Amino acid sequence: MALQCGIFMTPYNPPSRTPRQVFDWAVDIARIADEAGFTDFMIGEHYTLGWENIPMPEAIIAACAQITKKIRFAPMAHLLPYHDPATLAVRIGWLSQVMEGRYFLGVAPGGHHTDAILHGFDDIFSLPPRQLEALRLMERVWERKPFLERGEYFQAGFPGPDTMPEYWVEVADNSPHGGREKLEIAVTGLSMNSSSMKFAGERNYSPISFFGGTPQMISHWNTWAVAMESKGRKADRKRYRVCRDVFIADSDAEAKRRYLSSGMAETWRKYLKEIYVKFRLFDGIIQDSGRNITPSEIDDDFLAEHVVLCGSPETVIDKLEKLASQVGGWGQIVANQHDSIDDPKPWEESLRRLATEVCPKVNMPA
Amino acid sequence: MALQCGIFMTPYNPPSRTPRQVFDWAVDIARIADEAGFTDFMIGEHYTLGWENIPMPEAIIAACAQITKKIRFAPMAHLLPYHDPATLAVRIGWLSQVMEGRYFLGVAPGGHHTDAILHGFDDIFSLPPRQLEALRLMERVWERKPFLERGEYFQAGFPGPDTMPEYWVEVADNSPHGGREKLEIAVTGLSMNSSSMKFAGERNYSPISFFGGTPQMISHWNTWAVAMESKGRKADRKRYRVCRDVFIADSDAEAKRRYLSSGMAETWRKYLKEIYVKFRLFDGIIQDSGRNITPSEIDDDFLAEHVVLCGSPETVIDKLEKLASQVGGWGQIVANQHDSIDDPKPWEESLRRLATEVCPKVNMPA
Repeated sequence: MALQCGIFMTPYNPPSRTPRQVFDWAVDIARIADEAGFTDFMIGEHYTLGWENIPMPEAIIAACAQITKKIRFAPMAHLLPYHDPATLAVRIGWLSQVMEGRYFLGVAPGGHHTDAILHGFDDIFSLPPRQLEALRLMERVWERKPFLERGEYFQAGFPGPDTMPEYWVEVADNSPHGGREKLEIAVTGLSMNSSSMKFAGERNYSPISFFGGTPQMISHWNTWAVAMESKGRKADRKRYRVCRDVFIADSDAEAKRRYLSSGMAETWRKYLKEIYVKFRLFDGIIQDSGRNITPSEIDDDFLAEHVVLCGSPETVIDKLEKLASQVGGWGQIVANQHDSIDDPKPWEESLRRLATEVCPKVNMPA
Repeated sequence: MALQCGIFMTPYNPPSRTPRQVFDWAVDIARIADEAGFTDFMIGEHYTLGWENIPMPEAIIAACAQITKKIRFAPMAHLLPYHDPATLAVRIGWLSQVMEGRYFLGVAPGGHHTDAILHGFDDIFSLPPRQLEALRLMERVWERKPFLERGEYFQAGFPGPDTMPEYWVEVADNSPHGGREKLEIAVTGLSMNSSSMKFAGERNYSPISFFGGTPQMISHWNTWAVAMESKGRKADRKRYRVCRDVFIADSDAEAKRRYLSSGMAETWRKYLKEIYVKFRLFDGIIQDSGRNITPSEIDDDFLAEHVVLCGSPETVIDKLEKLASQVGGWGQIVANQHDSIDDPKPWEESLRRLATEVCPKVNMPA
């Protein structure tokens, strides 16, 4: 089957970047990705993270509505415990109509402690039940039938002529474009035996895997597929998206040289490596590498070889096909976006080559 | 003093318009207004109103960030009981930075029953205390000092190194552009002896008057000024914005002809007249007119003569100066935006003439 490509804009930018710099850069990358043939563009939502500072993915999506043509956008993900569910349900529906259907929805409970504290929580453990209640209320709002429900954490309703005989005006239809059944919902997974992947499969949401080596990628697929099949649904590998760091240039040596001087390498050095070590996210990748090192020993060379899909188009095709032979096929390779503001050309070239020279040639098992 | 001009995009569009039509049209009008020299562009926030369907003013603002140069934008207003206050505070600060300060903030408790029901409320009377608590928590978030508070309706906090020694990363600065003290906050008033105008004056928020005749306009100013002075502040007439329907053309006859075939006239016929009759919002205007009619007798001619500032540039200047002589000066005339999608040229001409031929010539008392 054909491999699609997407972009995940967490974003990774140094905290020294201003919101306007990050905004302009996100819009630029979306335009380039649309022209190059990327299928999806996903934008994170975080409230406190200096390295990942887009608290309103909708702002990027709206700014791209008129200047992109085909690419689909998603908040990845709206952190449901941090929103009024009726407000969010209406905004999602309205924005999906503004985008004329070039929209899908990521949902998550929120996993960052600083974001949780900002929202008045001591920890992140009380968030998942709030996500469940929010989803239930959002689904009811999208049904557009009169109700009024006060839940444990949230409340919502929908007005009808009978509930408001004295004050009835035509209610706007801000349900999702084409109807609720047309709205794709997706969920990201990070850890082994991810509870998010189980959650996604049980609800027919699409799975997105943050890469942590082949054991974890196999685990994500299996967890999702088992949950899908437990509800009598077919698990289609075309729906499986996998996020990777990718850097492509004319030759392997040039790709590595460009990677080492890129914002991507800086993000690993100054931000991601420490997090990956702390939460043991390198374990599967070290296992795959066959190297006998501890996570804290990981250096630029190891990252270029085993974490980043780095090389010429031919090398990256080989690496993707080798990975697919180990874990089975998937539908979309999602390139993690990193800061490329100071030297945009090598990165833009890499993105274009991923879409035009790599993905169309990957032989992906169905 | 010089009279500025602004635009208020409630929006008024027939419910048959799609979200994408309204979005594109709002962005078009903002671009035209920026080029013509308008100072401010305000966008309503409603969740259920078929005739006023923009649930996310931030989407319009973000879409205008790169394509406008000078004009300032405001959500008018964010309905605070319908938002998580920490989420909203961070988004406001971040968006004000994306706009590089071309941003001010409208706040309101929400006044539409269908919106209240959508958010799980039986009525609108429980909303104002929620607005107050939300504002207090938002101010604390903008202070960026560690806290954790569970209020009666909402909760919020701010992380610090001491609260999270195990998991500390650099916290993004999403406080308002230039600091909290640079953020203008504004409030709209509609009724006589408006509690919103008192609320605004007590907090040093700016007043925006929806026009309902000279008695109400005087009342709005006086209520705000008394509240300002009660806190030891000077009430500056430059801060007073007044919203009006305006239609300008070469001659009075042509302006009336264009008004009668405009989306503005349609909004009055099909939507606003009934609301104005029901809530007695025509009373002050009928009193001003000296006519002995009931609100339900109001027709197109009365609207063109007494509700809309309709005429040649000279006539509109005269009407504005006469009004100012009766009620005192104000700082900005805000043109209410109405649907002009099917026949945009007459309306765009009217907007341009307001900015270039009317406002610069109005002799406004200080």
